[in-house]
Amino acid sequence: MEFKDFAELQSVSTLRQLAKNPYSLIRKDALSPRRISRYRCSTCGFDALYAAQQIDDQVLEVLQKLADEAEVTEKFRAMKSGAVLNFITGHESENRQVLHTACRDIFSDSPLEPEATAQAKEQLARLKSFLADLDNGTLVNEHGQSFTTMIQIGIGGSDLGPRALYHALKRYRLPGRNARFIANVDPDDAAEVLVGLDLSRVLVNVVSKSGTTLETLTNEELMRQAFSAAGLNPAQHMISVTGAGSPMENPAKYVTSFNMYDYIGGRYSVTSMVGGVILGFALGYEGFVEVLRGTNAVDVAAEEPLLKKNIPLLMALLGIWNHNFLGRATLAVLPYSQALVWFPAHLQQCDMESNGKSVSRLGGAVRWQTGPVVWGEPGTNGQHAFYQLLHQGTEIVPVEFIGFRKSQYDNEVMVKGTTSQQKLLANMIAQSLTLASGRQHDNPNKSFPGNRPSTLLVAEQLTPYAMGTLLAIYENKIAFQGFCWNINSFDQEGVQLGKIMASRILSEISSENIGNMEKFSLDAPEISLLEAVGLR
Amino acid sequence: MEFKDFAELQSVSTLRQLAKNPYSLIRKDALSPRRISRYRCSTCGFDALYAAQQIDDQVLEVLQKLADEAEVTEKFRAMKSGAVLNFITGHESENRQVLHTACRDIFSDSPLEPEATAQAKEQLARLKSFLADLDNGTLVNEHGQSFTTMIQIGIGGSDLGPRALYHALKRYRLPGRNARFIANVDPDDAAEVLVGLDLSRVLVNVVSKSGTTLETLTNEELMRQAFSAAGLNPAQHMISVTGAGSPMENPAKYVTSFNMYDYIGGRYSVTSMVGGVILGFALGYEGFVEVLRGTNAVDVAAEEPLLKKNIPLLMALLGIWNHNFLGRATLAVLPYSQALVWFPAHLQQCDMESNGKSVSRLGGAVRWQTGPVVWGEPGTNGQHAFYQLLHQGTEIVPVEFIGFRKSQYDNEVMVKGTTSQQKLLANMIAQSLTLASGRQHDNPNKSFPGNRPSTLLVAEQLTPYAMGTLLAIYENKIAFQGFCWNINSFDQEGVQLGKIMASRILSEISSENIGNMEKFSLDAPEISLLEAVGLR
Repeated sequence: MEFKDFAELQSVSTLRQLAKNPYSLIRKDALSPRRISRYRCSTCGFDALYAAQQIDDQVLEVLQKLADEAEVTEKFRAMKSGAVLNFITGHESENRQVLHTACRDIFSDSPLEPEATAQAKEQLARLKSFLADLDNGTLVNEHGQSFTTMIQIGIGGSDLGPRALYHALKRYRLPGRNARFIANVDPDDAAEVLVGLDLSRVLVNVVSKSGTTLETLTNEELMRQAFSAAGLNPAQHMISVTGAGSPMENPAKYVTSFNMYDYIGGRYSVTSMVGGVILGFALGYEGFVEVLRGTNAVDVAAEEPLLKKNIPLLMALLGIWNHNFLGRATLAVLPYSQALVWFPAHLQQCDMESNGKSVSRLGGAVRWQTGPVVWGEPGTNGQHAFYQLLHQGTEIVPVEFIGFRKSQYDNEVMVKGTTSQQKLLANMIAQSLTLASGRQHDNPNKSFPGNRPSTLLVAEQLTPYAMGTLLAIYENKIAFQGFCWNINSFDQEGVQLGKIMASRILSEISSENIGNMEKFSLDAPEISLLEAVGLR
Repeated sequence: MEFKDFAELQSVSTLRQLAKNPYSLIRKDALSPRRISRYRCSTCGFDALYAAQQIDDQVLEVLQKLADEAEVTEKFRAMKSGAVLNFITGHESENRQVLHTACRDIFSDSPLEPEATAQAKEQLARLKSFLADLDNGTLVNEHGQSFTTMIQIGIGGSDLGPRALYHALKRYRLPGRNARFIANVDPDDAAEVLVGLDLSRVLVNVVSKSGTTLETLTNEELMRQAFSAAGLNPAQHMISVTGAGSPMENPAKYVTSFNMYDYIGGRYSVTSMVGGVILGFALGYEGFVEVLRGTNAVDVAAEEPLLKKNIPLLMALLGIWNHNFLGRATLAVLPYSQALVWFPAHLQQCDMESNGKSVSRLGGAVRWQTGPVVWGEPGTNGQHAFYQLLHQGTEIVPVEFIGFRKSQYDNEVMVKGTTSQQKLLANMIAQSLTLASGRQHDNPNKSFPGNRPSTLLVAEQLTPYAMGTLLAIYENKIAFQGFCWNINSFDQEGVQLGKIMASRILSEISSENIGNMEKFSLDAPEISLLEAVGLR
């Protein structure tokens, strides 16, 4: 395995040349049926239709060469096998393995990294038994009643992934089971979640790897006070997911604790106990295992070195084409599925925290663009909101559409001879074609420039398995892009400085430090801003 | 009033020169207390702290000149007074007045556009009486019970604004009153909203100006069927907000109907009956009037021609500086308030649909960038998600932070000597300073380049009045930017082509058109994609 900087790859200079004259989607017959059927790739139940990208066979060939030069599938295989890939050469770094894939590599007799998978299986067995205790009435509240609501307290990776998947899969909840999420240190977040809730039936799941995350500790304390105020014993209503040996692994304070491991980064932790406990509570153990089955299927399929046969790899390289060579600053992910309402926010985290980097693996500053800004909302809602800019704005935004042939609830209504689901899909197709082809018109305000690229990602139905598949498609796409850009997609040093600064300020204003002020004396700008917002 | 293209303004070439060497925020003492106190602007209870923008007095002076050259406050005043500003010269266009401001210009004895304000007052009086009927038991369900839940069916402007404000102000709900929203044509959206709901206590508010919006009609039909299936009479459970004379103004089908007018665009319609009915239901009549009071105060204050004294104008010009002169493609709006969770999505609509344009008012293609991509999530959540890219990515993202000195619920907990609200604000300040100042470090991975600009927007508490203020700050900022770019911010031709294409496809697959296919024969690409997603 060799790490070469993006700008040093031969294919990069070829692609720069090709980008001067990209495939035009507005030419007559630019989107022929032959092109549509050729530019279609299938992986684990998803089809990627990418005829509406500004590429041709030659570009695809050189993108393939880029992937080969960067040895992306080798690195991916090494990652899954336990190589230390969370590092920067020549500088202090986390120096860790990257093994979120291990916690779903549970269906094979010979997992790629047996130790991590054994740990995952142990946690899964504990989860299964915990869920059985809830089901069979062994684990109940003070009055012998079952728990009906689980509130997850966590932030970032301990929040967005589980939240996105729970909302995506609410349809498949067990009867009488609900989940809620508290993330923000904003006290109004927790207050709003608690309105009208019967605390006696609530189980709180506190999730923090270190057991020291400020927001999470604050909200945990708030929940403990709420239980006490309701005459309930907090220790009977709280469980935790945390690193082995953290202060949150404490039987005096939690009914039980599950473990998470250093080799799984927060934003990749949905398929560990971070997502497992709450998804298992809501969907049942088998529901969560179905999610794992979907992710694992993609983890295996994504070893395929040919991008035409590997959706995550294909999407990674199409993204690089749009971002680095055609100069598009952002990527919109637009699911035509209301259940995926939180998925763009999760992807935003997973992608931007992974690839929003400026240092190469070799320790130097990058001289090429790394991750784009990722954003999105469900369609058709977005069509009535920001699509104006997508069609006629001066910023060109590549789009990834996501759609399903069948709805989840089958609660259909026929209006004007078509079902809602048909309307949803017809709109998605119409948008993709319109963005690509544009339209000339005598009235310039009714003209559409076209040449705005998109990919359609389509599967049968948003089931737990399909959700796992979709999740792993994006996780692996992000890793592939990081390998191409030769950056470390697995650390997040960029969030540290803000934390340090916030702690300094809080120390200054803390009532615990009165009389000890000189120790934390702040700089002039901080003091000025504190005064401006009324904190001083 | 004269309409000059952006590129023709004298100040634009001066700003291009100045942008070659923008103010450096990473120099020692770049953020002096003096600068912080000088670069502070107050409007209607909000403070904008903009010391962390890459500007100095000279840049501000030329930005002021730009605003003067583009005659923005004159145009704003003309807009409020009823001038036809929704037009493109020399081409067919909507040719309408732009009068969302009129529906809050109700507190003065001499409104700027008396006719539109009279219509708004008439609708308000009808709303007041309708809400009184709900309160005093005149308007009840089949069993004489009160209505407890209002579901708004609408999409785009009839959804995002009301939804954002409802979530922001949930704290102030009347006892026993709730709201829900169905927008997406995705049948799972409605199905999910209806889970566990007692339909007998539900009042549905269908909102569509034309009365013909496909998504809205579909969801309305779905609700009617749900009422009938529950043995209830749909006509007793539905009201509408629609244009006068639309098919939705039908006493046989709706308990009552309120009116909206052509001179208010969907994305600016929150303060009309589009938001008024559901906000009035949830907060009470006086709560909604407080929102109007806040918006109106800003509408008045925003006539101030000096940007240093006018937050919407200041933010408009700072946005133009970052976007057109420093080349930043996107804008992140990051509220440190969980209640504002839907506000970025509303702004995304309001901003990108208004200013995502490519045609100048004079009818030619623009030769300058118009609106940026707008996105965001609440802090501190985002800090654990995408802030990595904000601090260390290769895309530079200007930020607008929004914060409040007090929480809404006052449900505080002290951890380590500070309250949650203090932690929230301390984090917001820390992020702004860190983005601006950066940090040099021997380890390149722990270095922060800095010079990433932000503004802090701070008010006392998120009340209905403050929410109105915040809304109008952004609405007017967007209008000011459109005046500078010399585009029509009030139409949305860019959404039409996709609609037409979707209708063509739906006609083709509609069961109503079997045997009549040749009439709607589709092009080859459409047919190929229909087959690929299983619609044919």
